[in-house]
Amino acid sequence: MVKVAVIGCGYWGPNLIRNFNELDNAEVAMISDLRPERLRTMSGKYPKMQVTVDHNEVLNNPDIDAVALATPVETHYPLASTAIKNGKSVFIEKPLTASVNEAEELIELAERHNQKLMVGHTFVYTGAVRKIKEFIDNRELGNINYFDSVRVNLGLFRPTVNVLWDLAPHDISIMDYLLGSEPEFVSAVGACHSGTGIENIAYITIHYPGNLLAHIHVNWLAPVKLRKVLISGTKKMIVYDDTEPDEKVKVYDKGIMINDDEDKMYSQMVEYRIGDMYAPKLDTSEALRTECGHFVDCIINDKKPITDGEAGLRVVKILQAAQLSMENNNERVDIRCIRKSPATLSSEKMSKSSTSSTSMAAV
Amino acid sequence: MVKVAVIGCGYWGPNLIRNFNELDNAEVAMISDLRPERLRTMSGKYPKMQVTVDHNEVLNNPDIDAVALATPVETHYPLASTAIKNGKSVFIEKPLTASVNEAEELIELAERHNQKLMVGHTFVYTGAVRKIKEFIDNRELGNINYFDSVRVNLGLFRPTVNVLWDLAPHDISIMDYLLGSEPEFVSAVGACHSGTGIENIAYITIHYPGNLLAHIHVNWLAPVKLRKVLISGTKKMIVYDDTEPDEKVKVYDKGIMINDDEDKMYSQMVEYRIGDMYAPKLDTSEALRTECGHFVDCIINDKKPITDGEAGLRVVKILQAAQLSMENNNERVDIRCIRKSPATLSSEKMSKSSTSSTSMAAV
Amino acid sequence: MVKVAVIGCGYWGPNLIRNFNELDNAEVAMISDLRPERLRTMSGKYPKMQVTVDHNEVLNNPDIDAVALATPVETHYPLASTAIKNGKSVFIEKPLTASVNEAEELIELAERHNQKLMVGHTFVYTGAVRKIKEFIDNRELGNINYFDSVRVNLGLFRPTVNVLWDLAPHDISIMDYLLGSEPEFVSAVGACHSGTGIENIAYITIHYPGNLLAHIHVNWLAPVKLRKVLISGTKKMIVYDDTEPDEKVKVYDKGIMINDDEDKMYSQMVEYRIGDMYAPKLDTSEALRTECGHFVDCIINDKKPITDGEAGLRVVKILQAAQLSMENNNERVDIRCIRKSPATLSSEKMSKSSTSSTSMAAV
Amino acid sequence: MVKVAVIGCGYWGPNLIRNFNELDNAEVAMISDLRPERLRTMSGKYPKMQVTVDHNEVLNNPDIDAVALATPVETHYPLASTAIKNGKSVFIEKPLTASVNEAEELIELAERHNQKLMVGHTFVYTGAVRKIKEFIDNRELGNINYFDSVRVNLGLFRPTVNVLWDLAPHDISIMDYLLGSEPEFVSAVGACHSGTGIENIAYITIHYPGNLLAHIHVNWLAPVKLRKVLISGTKKMIVYDDTEPDEKVKVYDKGIMINDDEDKMYSQMVEYRIGDMYAPKLDTSEALRTECGHFVDCIINDKKPITDGEAGLRVVKILQAAQLSMENNNERVDIRCIRKSPATLSSEKMSKSSTSSTSMAAV
Repeated sequence: MVKVAVIGCGYWGPNLIRNFNELDNAEVAMISDLRPERLRTMSGKYPKMQVTVDHNEVLNNPDIDAVALATPVETHYPLASTAIKNGKSVFIEKPLTASVNEAEELIELAERHNQKLMVGHTFVYTGAVRKIKEFIDNRELGNINYFDSVRVNLGLFRPTVNVLWDLAPHDISIMDYLLGSEPEFVSAVGACHSGTGIENIAYITIHYPGNLLAHIHVNWLAPVKLRKVLISGTKKMIVYDDTEPDEKVKVYDKGIMINDDEDKMYSQMVEYRIGDMYAPKLDTSEALRTECGHFVDCIINDKKPITDGEAGLRVVKILQAAQLSMENNNERVDIRCIRKSPATLSSEKMSKSSTSSTSMAAV
Repeated sequence: MVKVAVIGCGYWGPNLIRNFNELDNAEVAMISDLRPERLRTMSGKYPKMQVTVDHNEVLNNPDIDAVALATPVETHYPLASTAIKNGKSVFIEKPLTASVNEAEELIELAERHNQKLMVGHTFVYTGAVRKIKEFIDNRELGNINYFDSVRVNLGLFRPTVNVLWDLAPHDISIMDYLLGSEPEFVSAVGACHSGTGIENIAYITIHYPGNLLAHIHVNWLAPVKLRKVLISGTKKMIVYDDTEPDEKVKVYDKGIMINDDEDKMYSQMVEYRIGDMYAPKLDTSEALRTECGHFVDCIINDKKPITDGEAGLRVVKILQAAQLSMENNNERVDIRCIRKSPATLSSEKMSKSSTSSTSMAAV
Repeated sequence: MVKVAVIGCGYWGPNLIRNFNELDNAEVAMISDLRPERLRTMSGKYPKMQVTVDHNEVLNNPDIDAVALATPVETHYPLASTAIKNGKSVFIEKPLTASVNEAEELIELAERHNQKLMVGHTFVYTGAVRKIKEFIDNRELGNINYFDSVRVNLGLFRPTVNVLWDLAPHDISIMDYLLGSEPEFVSAVGACHSGTGIENIAYITIHYPGNLLAHIHVNWLAPVKLRKVLISGTKKMIVYDDTEPDEKVKVYDKGIMINDDEDKMYSQMVEYRIGDMYAPKLDTSEALRTECGHFVDCIINDKKPITDGEAGLRVVKILQAAQLSMENNNERVDIRCIRKSPATLSSEKMSKSSTSSTSMAAV
Repeated sequence: MVKVAVIGCGYWGPNLIRNFNELDNAEVAMISDLRPERLRTMSGKYPKMQVTVDHNEVLNNPDIDAVALATPVETHYPLASTAIKNGKSVFIEKPLTASVNEAEELIELAERHNQKLMVGHTFVYTGAVRKIKEFIDNRELGNINYFDSVRVNLGLFRPTVNVLWDLAPHDISIMDYLLGSEPEFVSAVGACHSGTGIENIAYITIHYPGNLLAHIHVNWLAPVKLRKVLISGTKKMIVYDDTEPDEKVKVYDKGIMINDDEDKMYSQMVEYRIGDMYAPKLDTSEALRTECGHFVDCIINDKKPITDGEAGLRVVKILQAAQLSMENNNERVDIRCIRKSPATLSSEKMSKSSTSSTSMAAV
């Protein structure tokens, strides 16, 4: 029985507590939050859990095997690094860290201390994304032409993090998992319409080798909820619409054929192909359950998590590059140069209140 | 009775012929196309029209009052400039010209020769766009925060023009009409997946003064047809979905309120407002009819067209800036510098077959 | 070259004229309508056609091989019977006739005079309905459990015919074609909300042998357009939504399994099965073109039309039974008793203005 | 603090327990179910509740102020009548009882013992239905022409109750609440496709005085989930689509106008009116919370419940009439004759296992 502690009982923490508690091979032994009333609420539901307002009690408790962090991003590195040094595996809500440097250090620490490091890229564990991955791996789509993701809503304006760091980790982690290769360049633009200086809309362009183009639109200030991904391959195309109650993934047997008959007119070089559409049956298990179960399974059976520290790092690298581009007039950023850059830029921008004692409880 | 000649009887020309012929105060007296079989087909439907394979017969015919061009973009300037010099008003299918220089010269020519110059920004004449314009002009939306337009489909791959020059004129002309101000910077990325070198997907970002951001996604290689515009204002927001049979325009009484109460937590600075939605009744007349009627009305009553040469120029300026950015790794282009730049870049890129004698008939 | 005459140039007649004219092996040689202005309009488009306000000129013209009727239903029988007796094949817009007796006589006449009799059940010639027929004939759905059709809209209130006779022929002809068997009982209810006495909403229930149930909702007074057919089979189910631009037909691999294990609880007798959905590619040719071509092909090659007089009779039988039930408080009508009944009831109800000289031109 | 006991902890009971527990002025003091494992599960969540497998302990407990029943319909009468006689108010999940006689007796008992009797017509407490009621009461729709409700899904096949008694109470209770008048006649058809004899599809027609027609389609065997209500008034029309995440209620300013100008052609008697559509903001509170709160409020402040015994009786009367019609070939049943009829028919049909000791726990 893996003993898990959850730090942060705000919006997302209770979901982690519920899911870890419903596993057969794990239990939430301890929770921590700066706000006593949050602890009381959770205690009412799960009376056996030990509670504390001091996360150090969690980090120093030798009975705890693993720590799950549902705290603001700027706290991920200090909390996780201490936990790992104290011999605990760590599950961190996305994004893994606030900078590439922090992510690289956590990966190195986890390896040295032989602890699991996993990031909560929850969409990777949905039936929809796993089914799309199958299609891509089976070469049913052919080569991928582009990946286009739109995630807009009238969403919660977060005070310490912009829409790029809040929403785009979902899209970037889906993209990273599905495409399975490293991009070359990133550029991004954003705008703030609330007067707070925190961007509420952003467009991110990611260039992969060859002519594979990816693009993400994230937005907190839209009147309707859209969560639509278009993936175009040389053989087939996919629309993944997460707002559909059923049939979230539709596979279209549509595309173009390149005509290499020289006698034909130039105007007929590209011809169409339109065939059937089908919507595969999807596993409808709760993704977070699958994810929590996978973390515990990796600990017990010494496996490498699907969304390990490296996956978290790749996402943070793109976020950091996008943030840099956004601050530099959409300038194209070479992703390979991100590794060495000091991560000062984002920490300022993202965590205006990071010194505030309340920040650790806000997620 | 205004005597109109239509040059180009390919895809779009027949629509112009039908609509000009159905007006009470105009008739199509002459048509021209390089392909005799296209002329025969049109003649069968409208036997009274004079036909010719030589557009010079049109341009030199003193009986013709106005010429409508439905020919490839690279022919717009030479045909229109001759027509204007010969004392004819000119209606040109979008985009107005292949370069800013050409557009400026046509405007200057039309003014000097006292002829009407109008560009076929057809969406501006739809009931939907005119209704949105009303809302914006009445200040119902407040200040505009952003304009986001998606126009994707499995569309016709055109051999001599990329998706930017083919589809984006629609979105840019709608944006130009609705926002009514001049942008500052443009950047764009695109990709080609057909091996022809012609981009089939492009993302264009347009920066306006203040924090007004516009973004356009045009795409010939998508499995589904999407034509959705989001417009967010400080008071209300609009979704304009042109694929809806009814209720194309929805106005949402939704938004955020900025809380300036200093006592409140930083986290509560931005609050929500969610109210009713409504879909106004729209004029469902055919936009092209309205547009053709407007052109004839401007000629007869000496009015300035809503989509005059200046409107055409503003759209070409953004297209040319976007093309320049796309060729320079998404680099931000200052729109004010476009005016003076020689338009060599796009003419090469866009009109590979512009010397071919067949190009004039292809639209 | 089959010489076709079209009688009735109101709403639908022009579509017949256009489609027959575009066939290679037929031409519209003559048209007739009581209103000279309708004839002038059509003549402007197709100058070679002979025109007349007197349909007897059509019926007596020995050069005419076939007559197509787009006139009000009460005129179908007199016009068609004369045409057949004069040695012409006849195509009649749905419904075939205003009564079962008339339909039976036309069938008998056509047989005796060796002429083709075909009814315009246009939906039978759509790619969607033909594809569904394929699935049913291939036994992919298993046995059909039910057929449910909804066809509602804010539609044209017709002055001489109720919504049952106006819209339900579409649904009944689709049902008749797909199910391929004869029903036993019909019942119907309707209501009039316009004060004219003409029903604008009706619900029709059709009982087939076994437990196959069919139901149709037709409605002229609905705020939205719905055209949705549900077909449930023991193996698979279909949703046919004619308002969808693409993917009109969706096949669901869903259903129930009957558990005959006696040990299992009664409560577990029925289990679920949920699999993939797929939307087959459909032939998108214009159904009316296919239909007109089929009529001409039947004449030239002496074939039996798919929607022959018998198909038309089966539909009229159900309409007449439904009308009878509607007038008798929803009483169940045995379809086998309809054959002998005099068709007096519907002729009064349906054709209040049938004596008016204008009625023949109204469709 | 009202002390509530919940009998039946199957599918719906836990929702009642949660909602009553979250009220400030009530608490669930006791729960009962025949299955000890259900009690254990609920006890784990709410440790303070007393639990018992014997519902008589509940009914005889003097500390209990009110009993909520989430048990099979055939148990409603015996449990509720005992509870009322023992001085407890009663909340009963829909439908109120298995027969009109039972409903009338409960109403009479509740009155005599001065206890509240309320039925769980939950949809009546949704923001959507309450908003529609407002529109109707404010005369915004004018006179109601028809009410059409479709509620289909691949739903749970229940072993002891058909789709009429399972799903139609929702539609009938919405209709009853909105229309606010008593119908005259009911007819219904159904079919069973599972071999169990339990109907899984039914169509119910309800005639109101005047020309107000209502129709309900309920179905457990459909491949897609539809929950759509059309309400047409002489002034406006409503579409209420419960599957929409937002904008569940749309009000259309559409309709017809009756032309009483005698000079106009008969064919122009009915003219169209098409205006704006709007979707009002809806209260999104959980309906069951509102409902449970209302029950407690009625007890504390001696108010008459909105969905009182009479409302429950009206729904049962229509259900019983529909059941009778369904068993008699769709024969029209006079609703006024239902009151006196012995309710033997439905009790046999509906509750095959009512003698089974397990039935009391199945809901």
